Amino acid sequence: MTSKQYQSDLQIAQAAKLKHIKDIAQSVNISDSDIEMYGNYKAKLPLELINEDKVAESNMVLVTAMTPTPAGEGKTTTSIGLSEGLNKIGKKTTVVLREPSLGPVFGMKGGAAGGGYSQVVPMEDINLHFTGDFAAIEKANNLLAALIDNNIQSKEDNLGIDPRTVEWKRVMDMNDRSLREIVSGMGGKPGGMMRETGFNITAASEIMAILCLAKDMDDLKEKMGNIYVGDTYDGKAVFAKDLNAQGAMAVLLKDAIKPNLVQTLEGNPAIIHGGPFANIAQGTNSVIATKMGMSLSDYVVTEAGFGADLGAEKFLDIKCGYSGLSPKAIVLVATVRALKYHGGQALEDLKKPNTVALVKGLENLEKHIENIKTFGLPGVVSINKFVSDTDEEIDIIVNRCKELGVKVALCEGWEKGGDGCTDLAKEVVKAVESCTTRYKPVYEWELSVKEKIERIARKIYGAKDIEFLPKAKQNLKKIERIGLNDKPVCIAKTQYSFSDDPKALGKPEKFTLTVREIEIASGAGFCIPITGNMLRMPGLPAKPAAVGMDIDNKGKITGLS
Amino acid sequence: MTSKQYQSDLQIAQAAKLKHIKDIAQSVNISDSDIEMYGNYKAKLPLELINEDKVAESNMVLVTAMTPTPAGEGKTTTSIGLSEGLNKIGKKTTVVLREPSLGPVFGMKGGAAGGGYSQVVPMEDINLHFTGDFAAIEKANNLLAALIDNNIQSKEDNLGIDPRTVEWKRVMDMNDRSLREIVSGMGGKPGGMMRETGFNITAASEIMAILCLAKDMDDLKEKMGNIYVGDTYDGKAVFAKDLNAQGAMAVLLKDAIKPNLVQTLEGNPAIIHGGPFANIAQGTNSVIATKMGMSLSDYVVTEAGFGADLGAEKFLDIKCGYSGLSPKAIVLVATVRALKYHGGQALEDLKKPNTVALVKGLENLEKHIENIKTFGLPGVVSINKFVSDTDEEIDIIVNRCKELGVKVALCEGWEKGGDGCTDLAKEVVKAVESCTTRYKPVYEWELSVKEKIERIARKIYGAKDIEFLPKAKQNLKKIERIGLNDKPVCIAKTQYSFSDDPKALGKPEKFTLTVREIEIASGAGFCIPITGNMLRMPGLPAKPAAVGMDIDNKGKITGLS
Repeated sequence: MTSKQYQSDLQIAQAAKLKHIKDIAQSVNISDSDIEMYGNYKAKLPLELINEDKVAESNMVLVTAMTPTPAGEGKTTTSIGLSEGLNKIGKKTTVVLREPSLGPVFGMKGGAAGGGYSQVVPMEDINLHFTGDFAAIEKANNLLAALIDNNIQSKEDNLGIDPRTVEWKRVMDMNDRSLREIVSGMGGKPGGMMRETGFNITAASEIMAILCLAKDMDDLKEKMGNIYVGDTYDGKAVFAKDLNAQGAMAVLLKDAIKPNLVQTLEGNPAIIHGGPFANIAQGTNSVIATKMGMSLSDYVVTEAGFGADLGAEKFLDIKCGYSGLSPKAIVLVATVRALKYHGGQALEDLKKPNTVALVKGLENLEKHIENIKTFGLPGVVSINKFVSDTDEEIDIIVNRCKELGVKVALCEGWEKGGDGCTDLAKEVVKAVESCTTRYKPVYEWELSVKEKIERIARKIYGAKDIEFLPKAKQNLKKIERIGLNDKPVCIAKTQYSFSDDPKALGKPEKFTLTVREIEIASGAGFCIPITGNMLRMPGLPAKPAAVGMDIDNKGKITGLS
Repeated sequence: MTSKQYQSDLQIAQAAKLKHIKDIAQSVNISDSDIEMYGNYKAKLPLELINEDKVAESNMVLVTAMTPTPAGEGKTTTSIGLSEGLNKIGKKTTVVLREPSLGPVFGMKGGAAGGGYSQVVPMEDINLHFTGDFAAIEKANNLLAALIDNNIQSKEDNLGIDPRTVEWKRVMDMNDRSLREIVSGMGGKPGGMMRETGFNITAASEIMAILCLAKDMDDLKEKMGNIYVGDTYDGKAVFAKDLNAQGAMAVLLKDAIKPNLVQTLEGNPAIIHGGPFANIAQGTNSVIATKMGMSLSDYVVTEAGFGADLGAEKFLDIKCGYSGLSPKAIVLVATVRALKYHGGQALEDLKKPNTVALVKGLENLEKHIENIKTFGLPGVVSINKFVSDTDEEIDIIVNRCKELGVKVALCEGWEKGGDGCTDLAKEVVKAVESCTTRYKPVYEWELSVKEKIERIARKIYGAKDIEFLPKAKQNLKKIERIGLNDKPVCIAKTQYSFSDDPKALGKPEKFTLTVREIEIASGAGFCIPITGNMLRMPGLPAKPAAVGMDIDNKGKITGLS
């Protein structure tokens, strides 16, 4: 095969001729002396480069998606392609993204630096340790864990923490199911107090959520000090600040707080920073990175994890709620294959044309379009084109969008890079220029946590009823006690359905959303209503990607995807 | 207090005006384009800069010590000071050192970047994540652990590993006693196979030992493939290569294999790379770093952990045995306080003059001097001067050295930097210039493991008898089976005595060394006879250093030592 689309992401990325990161910095008017280089193609950007006046003037575009298939619909690829397209039509644009987790790299899913001809590079570095941010977050998280267990162990300064109540877990950026549930502190008295605990993957750490919401180092410290770690034997809540942990944790994050500059395949600037989960956290890159991008260019394209019911809602109600940011347009990624899937086509048959399923599946897209109107922001549907899509299928989507009066464009970024995204870019510019207001929040923070959950469930998910199980009701009292009632909520729900049942495709009607329990992220400043099984420590598959990887004596890597 | 010696290490380091790392590189004839900068003061050096011809011509000086007190006798400070001194007297010198572990930084001991006016900088970076090497080693170690447990869990490609035999532990660079002994794999079938295991601190990972012995990426992969992980239910040894783990592990180490260039306080080059434990591993920086230093300058000063009975012996028999390197002189660090300690002075009284104890303690130093002669290399005793030392005490040591015909000099690097080390530097140059041969190994590798242990114990430690407990005898059979009999041995023994009893100070006589068990490090290529309790996962003290640390909004750190 010589056709370019049959090259792997890694081959395309390795074949790219990268610009020196100094040149990328210069293209956004940053001088050599203002960046901290990590090799020739990565750099840390100091927070002093954030310019609030420019942030206020710049245009942020949020890329989100319809309810995805298990393969994902290409938000990152679309974000990068759109950014290339905007630069092509003369808009100075920076794409701002999350950092990938190592877990999936060695497991099954592969990396997360875009795909095809819409990638950020150096791909290997971004997918591996990058500039060490995840490792630093991991250490900060685990330092707090060590300090908690040490406080339980030591007589001096003992806070009387009841080991049975400690909710703070350790983290590791690895798919390792055996660490999900463990007993720690064995080996008698010298080995600490025995207790049940476990590891989450690093992206699920509350430190990740906090870093991505923090304004600066002081704010980061304050938020980390507010982390709830458990209760004393007397039932008093204990926070990280009671252990004086936040200073040392912040020391560990001295570099991780700074966003990372890299480039797209076409040599445009890209900022990659932070990567919180999209279910139990806000699922989008750091506030600092977004503001940095907006300080450096006229347009910023950014994304939020999962479908718009989760990603976009949290992006607005949590990230924008805390930071004061507001997007000027929302791009909704749709694919022929996801529409057919929601219309009842089997997963293994999604490459086969089926206009009946496609038309039926449009109800999913339409509900997301309706939600974007609820947010009060202009939307653009971006059809992420696959080689198996027929013209007839594409036309059906385009025509329905026109009937609904919503802007629509094809995105061929995967195959063609920026050249495949100029139409989309033009529609996005029109949308941005039509935007006259800030987003409308789904709820006011003053509402009770219960009311906030109900509001999101009815307005965004389309739920008829909301049931709170006994544990959730109990948690509501604790939330009140800890003082989190006036903070936003971050609902953990399957990404595969508007409902809490991953098999309820399309636009489920008359369903009940069941809130099983509500967790506390008092450092990040939200609580997390849980509506399903949330796996925070994945396992490796039977054939892990790791076993196919190699590197030769010259440093050339193979088997990374 | 205005006297400069009362400033903390951190204050001195923060007050230093650092050169740009490009200028440091230039000073050893490396151009900008050949280094990979990590910020402005750290850089990775590509392996292509190693020049074997220059390695053969360059002069390596090994800094080791007499049997230390629990506070340590200042090998790192002496190494850095000596390097400054050599540069002052016109010898182009690079100091090559280990990377500090994060565990002690947040625990009690503090960092490990030298002290006073003999430090490597940027001190905060070196003591914190540095260039991410430890994090990468941790991930490579833990990826293997995840692959082992995943193989036990999966039906596909199942090797039949018996979970009860798995010896490979996970690691974390943290003092966290609660992880020392754990039960993993709880939570029923989806959570993996339940088994007893634990975490070591990252410096104790066999990956660390391997990285520090590897010649290049191919060698690193081969060694990692040879790691013994446990047995099958049929009693067959299983290695990392049976899991195809080494390729992905090496991918994770793509940057960690490259040594790190930094600078001393006086702007001379310093290379810092790797940091294996000195009991269960070779306790010295990577072979690659040493060769890099020798490629770049005429003199290299390097150190080996613990006293000379452990550090120097392993440096020669393991590191030099594998790499072909050989030092041209050995510097033996002695202190008035350690000599008094070995002469019976109580730990809390070591600042008080006591010439009787001092004279008695000299027997410890003398045994080390004798050992250096056994190695066939010229030695120089370096008296690391403390402000509490009296002239009389110093004179006693100097005179005894003269009587013994061994070179001796004061080292005042801590107080005065290079200016305090020119006498020592001159003595070292004389020693180097007098060296005409390679070191004499303590044993030939062809001897059996049992004979090798006996040889070291008698010749270096001065043991009368060597006892092998039943488990050790059993282990000897396994070593034979796995094919490690013709490899060097790395004895794990207390650093506080020549014997295996940490309370036997001075020069213990007629003692029996008891070998309890012998561990296998088949990837690193040695076995580890255990002669005492080896703590591979320390705990935090009652008052961890972490609780006194802070960083302000400008990034200025306090409380790091």
